[in-house]
Amino acid sequence: MEKQLKDKLYEYASNTESWLKEYSLQNNLGLADTVAEAMDYSLEAGGKRIRPVLVQAFCKICGGDEKNAAAPACALEMIHTFSLIHDDLPCMDDDDLRRGKPSCHKKFGEACAVLAGDALAIRPFQIIADDKELSAEVKVKLISELSFSSGAQGMIGGQIIDMENEERDNVDEANLRRMYALKTGMLIKTACVMGCITAGADEKQIEAAKEYAHCLGLAFQIIDDILDVTADEAKLGKPTGSDSAENKTTFVTLFGIESARNEAQKLTEKALEILNGFDNNEFLKGLTKYLLERDY
Amino acid sequence: MEKQLKDKLYEYASNTESWLKEYSLQNNLGLADTVAEAMDYSLEAGGKRIRPVLVQAFCKICGGDEKNAAAPACALEMIHTFSLIHDDLPCMDDDDLRRGKPSCHKKFGEACAVLAGDALAIRPFQIIADDKELSAEVKVKLISELSFSSGAQGMIGGQIIDMENEERDNVDEANLRRMYALKTGMLIKTACVMGCITAGADEKQIEAAKEYAHCLGLAFQIIDDILDVTADEAKLGKPTGSDSAENKTTFVTLFGIESARNEAQKLTEKALEILNGFDNNEFLKGLTKYLLERDY
Repeated sequence: MEKQLKDKLYEYASNTESWLKEYSLQNNLGLADTVAEAMDYSLEAGGKRIRPVLVQAFCKICGGDEKNAAAPACALEMIHTFSLIHDDLPCMDDDDLRRGKPSCHKKFGEACAVLAGDALAIRPFQIIADDKELSAEVKVKLISELSFSSGAQGMIGGQIIDMENEERDNVDEANLRRMYALKTGMLIKTACVMGCITAGADEKQIEAAKEYAHCLGLAFQIIDDILDVTADEAKLGKPTGSDSAENKTTFVTLFGIESARNEAQKLTEKALEILNGFDNNEFLKGLTKYLLERDY
Repeated sequence: MEKQLKDKLYEYASNTESWLKEYSLQNNLGLADTVAEAMDYSLEAGGKRIRPVLVQAFCKICGGDEKNAAAPACALEMIHTFSLIHDDLPCMDDDDLRRGKPSCHKKFGEACAVLAGDALAIRPFQIIADDKELSAEVKVKLISELSFSSGAQGMIGGQIIDMENEERDNVDEANLRRMYALKTGMLIKTACVMGCITAGADEKQIEAAKEYAHCLGLAFQIIDDILDVTADEAKLGKPTGSDSAENKTTFVTLFGIESARNEAQKLTEKALEILNGFDNNEFLKGLTKYLLERDY
């Protein structure tokens, strides 16, 4: 990775880490119960912080100040983390590991993991509503976008399609695309859109951000499917081969690795083209290429 | 119950029913998946709709138009319903029945019940943010109030205390009061406060509403404890005696039925006194007395 890209990515990711610490109920508000501990445990397990990075990058590229993106960036990361906690539950995917560490219910018990996920689904709306910098109008737009994309019409809707597909013998391409667009694509799209809203961007910019995010999100998911087959387990931080063990339909099972890789490549090129419509697009272009080339 | 009280209670409850239908993802937006069905199933299971009634009543008593209370009233009922769905899960209270019907996970399976609860925890913020009548400032205040009171510092915080108390040999009065104040008291308080905010009430009115709600919420919970021992199972719509079967500490186990009843009586009198500070308080006074005398 180029040094400039790496530095900026590091800056955005560490902004996120320090903001999350400020929003922590344990550290900041002294809430000393198991749910607060479990919330921080799962939030700290980290990952690439791609969504908060995108919020900041789109805020910047639309002429805003990244420091104002603290609430939307962390709100989105909390929603993402809540979905992982509940996804890992025994009645859902029943995963013991998440990012190389025991999943939330393995560490804190199932009831506590349900409640920690619930609390992380609700707190995002509080930190946006209570933010000191953003206007009421911007807050309402952010909350509308976030709740729509994470709810039954968005991410949760994608999860139910994913679950129901497990019972189906045949999952076709249209179904798979819709599931991806909702389950993982929506929060990627919302990351970009929330960045725009925070900066007070116009409708044209928001539409371009959505189109970019559609391409990036789908490419990102296709690469996840490929990595489940090809990646190094230690590097990935979770067991590989789980899709095929569960007989899951993915872009790889539908088209094979090579076609899937080509599709991801095409989507990435389209995403890069859309970024040409923005000034100061170097960081986002570098990030987009990097996300395609990742091996974990 | 007096006819006038009964009519108003019926009006407020049926407002709630028709608003909930308008907000339904199945009916209104044609979302035809199992999660949307499970959300409506649990919302329609009904109950007394006390929280939406309080939102409307406090909106009215503070000089507002009850019709503007649609979003906050239904948002709060959705949060309440989400908490019931997750509370009933096998890893939580493991209840097969809710309001005389199979609980959500019994009807739709555990994974779907987790997701339906999640979706009902998120949609409230969307319906407030997208409301056509309320100002951005009022929406932000409503969302801040609702997310605080339902999250880890509120209702969910109370649920974890309740869960942890099950492991404890000795639960003292202070612990029990704190658990009640959070687990059930917070949403009652928020119902009254959201009604005030919707009407644009001043700080003095909001403070009085909070004090009233504290008394009402605690009295309501004490009566729940008493009914778990004394009520008719068919009327209550759920098995009685569950607290003592689980060795739960309640106001009844701490003080006995008579003292608990006296405490509820005292709290109700205090609540009625606070209502004297508001004009046109007849409905709320009637409701308060009615809630104390309920046998289900």
